Amino acid sequence: MKFGILSIGNEVVKGRTVNTNASEIANFLIQNGHEVAYVVTCKDEPDDICNSLNFLLEYCQAVISSGGLGPTLDDITIQSISRCLKVKMEINEHAMKLIEEKYSSMNLPVSDERKKMAMMPEGSSTLENSVGTAPGMFLKHHEKMIFSIPGVPREMRGMLRGIVDITGKGSLKYISREVKIEGIMESTFAPYIKKISEEMKNKIYVKSHPESAEFSHPILIIEVYGYSDDEKDLDYTISKCLDQVRDYATKLNGKIVIS
Amino acid sequence: MKFGILSIGNEVVKGRTVNTNASEIANFLIQNGHEVAYVVTCKDEPDDICNSLNFLLEYCQAVISSGGLGPTLDDITIQSISRCLKVKMEINEHAMKLIEEKYSSMNLPVSDERKKMAMMPEGSSTLENSVGTAPGMFLKHHEKMIFSIPGVPREMRGMLRGIVDITGKGSLKYISREVKIEGIMESTFAPYIKKISEEMKNKIYVKSHPESAEFSHPILIIEVYGYSDDEKDLDYTISKCLDQVRDYATKLNGKIVIS
Repeated sequence: MKFGILSIGNEVVKGRTVNTNASEIANFLIQNGHEVAYVVTCKDEPDDICNSLNFLLEYCQAVISSGGLGPTLDDITIQSISRCLKVKMEINEHAMKLIEEKYSSMNLPVSDERKKMAMMPEGSSTLENSVGTAPGMFLKHHEKMIFSIPGVPREMRGMLRGIVDITGKGSLKYISREVKIEGIMESTFAPYIKKISEEMKNKIYVKSHPESAEFSHPILIIEVYGYSDDEKDLDYTISKCLDQVRDYATKLNGKIVIS
Repeated sequence: MKFGILSIGNEVVKGRTVNTNASEIANFLIQNGHEVAYVVTCKDEPDDICNSLNFLLEYCQAVISSGGLGPTLDDITIQSISRCLKVKMEINEHAMKLIEEKYSSMNLPVSDERKKMAMMPEGSSTLENSVGTAPGMFLKHHEKMIFSIPGVPREMRGMLRGIVDITGKGSLKYISREVKIEGIMESTFAPYIKKISEEMKNKIYVKSHPESAEFSHPILIIEVYGYSDDEKDLDYTISKCLDQVRDYATKLNGKIVIS
């Protein structure tokens, strides 16, 4: 299944917070056989959230938003998504029950700010948040799946399994391996990457990630990865590619640092 | 000026590489008086790059792409942007000169892979890369500004100044300050944030970033920030807001850890 990730929060857009959530979500989805097509980061503004959501829904089958589910004034993800999709909001009884249970167990009142976290679009269901209080949201809308989870990393992390329980696992196995080479410039190695990629008919990705300056002390990480229904075959093919990478690197007098 | 950031690279989308570039670029722009509206991350695929670019151009006056400028087969940013905007590619003489100078100084030939980095859309100009070899690109297209810079952080970083030299600085001063509070739940503090925000008529942002679990040991970072043409007034207003935050926190028996 092709996913889009929507990271919501002024603090992410303006660079206060580095978007590690998107990386974690993407990693999790790929390890579970899914594909990630785009990540969009936008501010806590209804129109911005709507524009981003529409973009992702155009190209993806499922969207996971993170951030903006909490009790404060600027936590407007769920209401913005509802408005954007023209779906009415209602109190989700299950969400309310979860919230009441959590605060009652602490002898705390369910204030308006806390109740707010139980407002969900009609027809949606809740994703349980075992770490924090704001429940997540799952809505099926015109054959697309929309999930909203919190932005606090501990809470976000705890809810990913529940998403894959709903979508199911994808069939694609993903394998990635890397070789680190010193002393070869990226532009020198480029034709060999092209050669290996062409031999693999673009079924395997061979990517160079330069880790330092091209001239003074070149270090390249060559990443070889792919997706396949046949894990054994993928593993074999990637190993063969890595052998070629090592052979070419040695011929070009590169030093293989990590293999 | 309202900017969009386009981060290009399979390694970013699939979560291998955390998108620190987008944070650095956003920080730099905001420190220079500009606004960042969206960040989009996409794969090294022509259609994905085009879809992302079109989305950003719809809502922003300027777009900065990072990644995909190098010598390898999958470095396709410039050609994808050109194709997307239906602008012909040509050898940019200035870019070629920069590339030839760099490689000649090392007694290295200008191979096809190296020449490729001088191909630019018609009408574009180059941004000098003082750290690496791939020059950046600047194109004005239908009153929008498009900048392409490398994804290698050292190279990206070295080219931001050149972008603001072209756009000029924005007039907005940005100030952000934070208070760290222990022992108050986000949902408990939420009405006070609402109160302060409303008094400020939403001209100042007061944001709570929970740093731990809501129940067991709540830690909140309260961030107060804003943008204004009048730096002195902004500074004063933010100080006043922070005083209120500290007062409320103390009344609620919170412990101010960092102020």
